[in-house]
Amino acid sequence: MSQPVILASGSSIRRDLLERAGLEFEVLPAKVDEEAIRNALEAENAAPDEIADALAAFKAQRVAEKRPEALVIGCDQVLAHRGKILAKPATIDDARAQLRALRGGRHQLMSAVVIYDDLQPLWRHVGTVTLTMRPFSDTYLTEYLERNWNSIRHAVGAYKLEEEGVRLFSAIEGDYFDVLGLSLLPLLTFLTTRGVLKA
Amino acid sequence: MSQPVILASGSSIRRDLLERAGLEFEVLPAKVDEEAIRNALEAENAAPDEIADALAAFKAQRVAEKRPEALVIGCDQVLAHRGKILAKPATIDDARAQLRALRGGRHQLMSAVVIYDDLQPLWRHVGTVTLTMRPFSDTYLTEYLERNWNSIRHAVGAYKLEEEGVRLFSAIEGDYFDVLGLSLLPLLTFLTTRGVLKA
Repeated sequence: MSQPVILASGSSIRRDLLERAGLEFEVLPAKVDEEAIRNALEAENAAPDEIADALAAFKAQRVAEKRPEALVIGCDQVLAHRGKILAKPATIDDARAQLRALRGGRHQLMSAVVIYDDLQPLWRHVGTVTLTMRPFSDTYLTEYLERNWNSIRHAVGAYKLEEEGVRLFSAIEGDYFDVLGLSLLPLLTFLTTRGVLKA
Repeated sequence: MSQPVILASGSSIRRDLLERAGLEFEVLPAKVDEEAIRNALEAENAAPDEIADALAAFKAQRVAEKRPEALVIGCDQVLAHRGKILAKPATIDDARAQLRALRGGRHQLMSAVVIYDDLQPLWRHVGTVTLTMRPFSDTYLTEYLERNWNSIRHAVGAYKLEEEGVRLFSAIEGDYFDVLGLSLLPLLTFLTTRGVLKA
């Protein structure tokens, strides 16, 4: 009777957040070539929030094509610095260069959610968190990279806030859940308005 | 050679946050009669942030008396609503009354940290997060309490943000770590300035 809800993401933290909130849903990760889409959008000078939104929408759409009767939730998070998106560091020298560029300044984490219904986008939201890195020394940076490279080699921005990476920062401002990569409160509010969750 | 650091708190989440950040420290939970101190301060019309700060200071001081040579970190978190502190709900009817009072409005979580050195307070900080509850229905409230009472009976405000309690909210504004009960970034910044952590 009630419309099924599908999370089109393989992220365990997003699944956790929604499960803990008591939402009933299936998980069906979307297979899209994120890098190709990102590169194409960047070539068209799309802004970081537009890219995050487009990636979330692509993922929702891909799963909606298989399950048009469901509400499909697509998600994405990007790191934006001076209007550009940062990629994962390929080498430890890449990571050093990224962190030197971010050092002493602000950057943003942008979390996008798009919901598809009957093959159409029904609702979308982008939440932005602003992070300020402290002016750490080159000596500290070298030691940080040596201690953490194995863990941060797949992390955009070359840090994990739940590890030593937090010591790179002096301030984090924004919605609590946007740091985690899912705008949980706007999403739950929408699902409540829609009648999926009890008001 | 270097000054020992002691966390005067038994909270596993605070210990986790500091361990993950790579700080070296001992844990020595302070034994203080929190309820008696809180009641005494409320009787003197102390503001919620003053009460959180005083409780954090009492805990740091108590451990500093045993270990005056160490840097001792005391912590506390209170829930403030209209200038008053909320206690844990004693019964399910208490919980219902608390949530009805908070419903549709804003309240604050205040996280205090005080560091003692040589029996004196050396540094202190209070971080405030503002939370907005949505205007949920009485029917939802009843079902929420039935489903969650066993888990929230020891939770101030009768909710846990990491469980269904998040569905009571429409917005959470403030520092990410203050939601978790420890102003991690100001604390790490102080420890870096002090030379405990490398700059």
